[in-house]
Amino acid sequence: MTVRYKLGCDLSYEIKSTTVFIFNLEVAKLQRHHDLVERLTITPDAARRVYTVPSVQNRYFAIEAQPGPLNVHYEAEVTLDVFRADPAGIDETPLAALPLDIMPFLLPSRFVSSDRLAAFAQKEFGHLPKGHGRVTAICNWLYDNLDYRRGSSDEQTTADESLILRAGVCRDFAHLGIAFCRALNIPARFVSCYAYGLEPRDFHAVFEAYLDGRWWLFDGTRQANLDGLVRIGVGRDAAEIAFSSPFGEMEPGPVKITIEHADGSPELPGRTADAISTEEPAPDAGAS
Amino acid sequence: MTVRYKLGCDLSYEIKSTTVFIFNLEVAKLQRHHDLVERLTITPDAARRVYTVPSVQNRYFAIEAQPGPLNVHYEAEVTLDVFRADPAGIDETPLAALPLDIMPFLLPSRFVSSDRLAAFAQKEFGHLPKGHGRVTAICNWLYDNLDYRRGSSDEQTTADESLILRAGVCRDFAHLGIAFCRALNIPARFVSCYAYGLEPRDFHAVFEAYLDGRWWLFDGTRQANLDGLVRIGVGRDAAEIAFSSPFGEMEPGPVKITIEHADGSPELPGRTADAISTEEPAPDAGAS
Amino acid sequence: MTVRYKLGCDLSYEIKSTTVFIFNLEVAKLQRHHDLVERLTITPDAARRVYTVPSVQNRYFAIEAQPGPLNVHYEAEVTLDVFRADPAGIDETPLAALPLDIMPFLLPSRFVSSDRLAAFAQKEFGHLPKGHGRVTAICNWLYDNLDYRRGSSDEQTTADESLILRAGVCRDFAHLGIAFCRALNIPARFVSCYAYGLEPRDFHAVFEAYLDGRWWLFDGTRQANLDGLVRIGVGRDAAEIAFSSPFGEMEPGPVKITIEHADGSPELPGRTADAISTEEPAPDAGAS
Amino acid sequence: MTVRYKLGCDLSYEIKSTTVFIFNLEVAKLQRHHDLVERLTITPDAARRVYTVPSVQNRYFAIEAQPGPLNVHYEAEVTLDVFRADPAGIDETPLAALPLDIMPFLLPSRFVSSDRLAAFAQKEFGHLPKGHGRVTAICNWLYDNLDYRRGSSDEQTTADESLILRAGVCRDFAHLGIAFCRALNIPARFVSCYAYGLEPRDFHAVFEAYLDGRWWLFDGTRQANLDGLVRIGVGRDAAEIAFSSPFGEMEPGPVKITIEHADGSPELPGRTADAISTEEPAPDAGAS
Repeated sequence: MTVRYKLGCDLSYEIKSTTVFIFNLEVAKLQRHHDLVERLTITPDAARRVYTVPSVQNRYFAIEAQPGPLNVHYEAEVTLDVFRADPAGIDETPLAALPLDIMPFLLPSRFVSSDRLAAFAQKEFGHLPKGHGRVTAICNWLYDNLDYRRGSSDEQTTADESLILRAGVCRDFAHLGIAFCRALNIPARFVSCYAYGLEPRDFHAVFEAYLDGRWWLFDGTRQANLDGLVRIGVGRDAAEIAFSSPFGEMEPGPVKITIEHADGSPELPGRTADAISTEEPAPDAGAS
Repeated sequence: MTVRYKLGCDLSYEIKSTTVFIFNLEVAKLQRHHDLVERLTITPDAARRVYTVPSVQNRYFAIEAQPGPLNVHYEAEVTLDVFRADPAGIDETPLAALPLDIMPFLLPSRFVSSDRLAAFAQKEFGHLPKGHGRVTAICNWLYDNLDYRRGSSDEQTTADESLILRAGVCRDFAHLGIAFCRALNIPARFVSCYAYGLEPRDFHAVFEAYLDGRWWLFDGTRQANLDGLVRIGVGRDAAEIAFSSPFGEMEPGPVKITIEHADGSPELPGRTADAISTEEPAPDAGAS
Repeated sequence: MTVRYKLGCDLSYEIKSTTVFIFNLEVAKLQRHHDLVERLTITPDAARRVYTVPSVQNRYFAIEAQPGPLNVHYEAEVTLDVFRADPAGIDETPLAALPLDIMPFLLPSRFVSSDRLAAFAQKEFGHLPKGHGRVTAICNWLYDNLDYRRGSSDEQTTADESLILRAGVCRDFAHLGIAFCRALNIPARFVSCYAYGLEPRDFHAVFEAYLDGRWWLFDGTRQANLDGLVRIGVGRDAAEIAFSSPFGEMEPGPVKITIEHADGSPELPGRTADAISTEEPAPDAGAS
Repeated sequence: MTVRYKLGCDLSYEIKSTTVFIFNLEVAKLQRHHDLVERLTITPDAARRVYTVPSVQNRYFAIEAQPGPLNVHYEAEVTLDVFRADPAGIDETPLAALPLDIMPFLLPSRFVSSDRLAAFAQKEFGHLPKGHGRVTAICNWLYDNLDYRRGSSDEQTTADESLILRAGVCRDFAHLGIAFCRALNIPARFVSCYAYGLEPRDFHAVFEAYLDGRWWLFDGTRQANLDGLVRIGVGRDAAEIAFSSPFGEMEPGPVKITIEHADGSPELPGRTADAISTEEPAPDAGAS
């Protein structure tokens, strides 16, 4: 079952001195993102330099903004094709079989201090049966142990700090989930997205773990359904895929996000128990 | 039932340049420490300056050591009188009734980052019934969740780091226990001692919590019995009562600790379920 | 030359649930604080428990506040007697001669991570001539290297973090100055005070270093004159002498501080080059 | 002037349980690495999986080792072609002209906490003229302010900790240099290499900064000459290009590194004042 979404964002800034921005807010050009129609409007208009990361299709664009107001408006329609599978059939990929180009997602990164959390992860999750269920157990732990609370963290909060503080926002839930995975030798990465049903509307962050040869989506916050996420980017952690990286003096205004079903698109049932992947299964795999 | 202990320590240093030492290794002169006989030998001999903290009877002495070998030998005999009570009858002291001179033991200190652990403590222990049993629950948590492992920490390890690392030595167990207590508004302090039965022999660290108007002993390591601890000092954390604080260039040699029952002293039964205090109960209290 | 000050503070809270407060905002009863007249008004009235620390004369009071508005109003008049000396004549006290009861002010504390800053302090200040001038050099370093900026730190900021961030408020300047002193084996402590001339009006924090047998005042912020500080309390760091420590749910309102010369009191000249102490010199000392 | 090197390494392990290793110790297959002849011997022999990062030519290989001794022996001969230029002519690349695929090297990473060091970098180096000389100023600062001392750091030490500790090994000098660059919006990355002249022999770490459209080598340790470095890998920080990443229980033995001039190769003069790059200049550039 495919669903078509209308989505977008509206960002405003008051530029004080010439500012270079790098944005990562456009829908990723993935196979599962069908019939993407989109429009990006920058006011006042500015020359864009663009870059798409070949391996993961993150789309960045950079502009140089002059003093005065700046508005970035993006809107898109896309049909989302979600791959579902029975979680029980999804095993962890043994280390000896992991593709080496995935190694970066096993390593600690700025906000994912997985090296410091090795013993913690081992003690909490080391004894659990390996597979998709173990990462779900991590998400359940996050949900049970961390409070979702705006203002409880800032842009420099790391996974081990969130663990101490027992609170965070979606970014922090994702960082700690990724840290636990990596500490257990499960490759994991940060995902930014437009999330259908998220209240209040905002950019959302979840994570993916690499299991059985594919990346699977997880979210410890339970704030949105995994089968209603339109991906923007993936990265080692939030540092890599900030929706806006400004270099210069400016005042950000409010961020407005929209996402809704396009006309005629079916409403999905509630929270799914399926494992959800962003990648098409290999032909001989048993996913539904 | 009272027990008499023979105990002591033997410290050696190779002094490279003139070094001032402050030592805190003598048995505290508490009421419960009866018939203390002791001998301190410094080789080569050196003038000692001494100081006893009036409120808690910690005994410090300072010497200035010249280059060459230095040996500090201490031996003592003391009869230990332990106050026992039924834990079920020991309540927490309400904040509004806490003596104000105890406030320092509610505050965070260098290695007891209780301010950072407020949410963690509240989530793990906030819902438990107040009283001696809640601090015992903290000790059980420490025992279940931290590995006792030499080399897992160093002199700068703080309570929140031990929580992340899920490992430590007696010093770290005490710091984290104290941090949880303070985060729950239970005054708590660090205790250094000679511990009967500790293997391998070493200085030991436990902690005390202030409940029902008195200080009670706790130990999350379960390495020694609470009724066989001969106190050296108490402080906010390990910084305050290091057994040796050298200021100068020197190489410490091995530390040798002894503690055994004096002839004829009865052997105590194993781990006690009693609450153990170092302070005599007020006349009308129900301790046994 | 003595000056008489009129000063006070006005604190408001909206209490949500029964809250125990410990306040430390009254003028310390020091010898140099002559003819202290004061009034404390709590609205609605509440029973106060009081405690004065014998060694340093910090005055604490605790109240239990019920839900609703709470106001604490304090006003005082006091004549300040300041001891001045020529900085050039003030040496550091050798470690071997330090009174042992001063040792706590050599140790690291929660916000004064002097143990982590040993190498830094040694490299920056280790080669300087010992004495009052070395601590002034530390203050100059703070003034030159840290930005005074509201909002650059929070209640958990430590000295080593301020050093990294190169910014802070008076509390942070004091913590880092104390840390450098302790790392150089100069005892140092945190001082809270009413500061004449501070703009905007607020509680102020400076520090004291122990030199030549006495405590001397220092301030790396250059926000107020050292001879116009009316002391509230001294402690190891800010944790120990917070002006208000609430335990319970409440919303703090604005803090209003006043301090001005009492009628007829002479205006002091500007920044003094004298060394300023809060303690009367010993009879044979050469202070002016 | 080109120089031919003979180099290699010898790593031994005692494997306790099946261990997956990822190694990054082979000479990178760069254009400037001519006539590479090499031999890798694993004893006992084990199937290797290999991966070369397309963008930077880091070469990884993974093996699964069974319990018992393991030896990895690598030897190579390579002719090193170094690109030299006058530092005075090398400007910084304006942010608005930076290729977007270089952005990851502007971001903070696990050990390069450049986000925390923004103010520090700005205060120390922000006022300096932009260009190669500014990064050299950073290296001079590192050399003057940090002690090179084995054992002063460990595998989790971050750039801001090294700054506090004022000490480190080559890895830490590189991390802090990179952090300062990134904080100044100069892309910078970690480089592992065989370093001619390094005593004692070991793997070496330096860093590269992106200036004027190319990557230039820098080393704050002054332990080896920039024109005698045979590159192994580049990455965001040490996490990405550890020479050995073991997953399993094993005991590492000593590491033996060799690097010498091949017969007949000319001896280079001492420390060069040239700017050294690993990339061939564009045809119209003025490098020598």
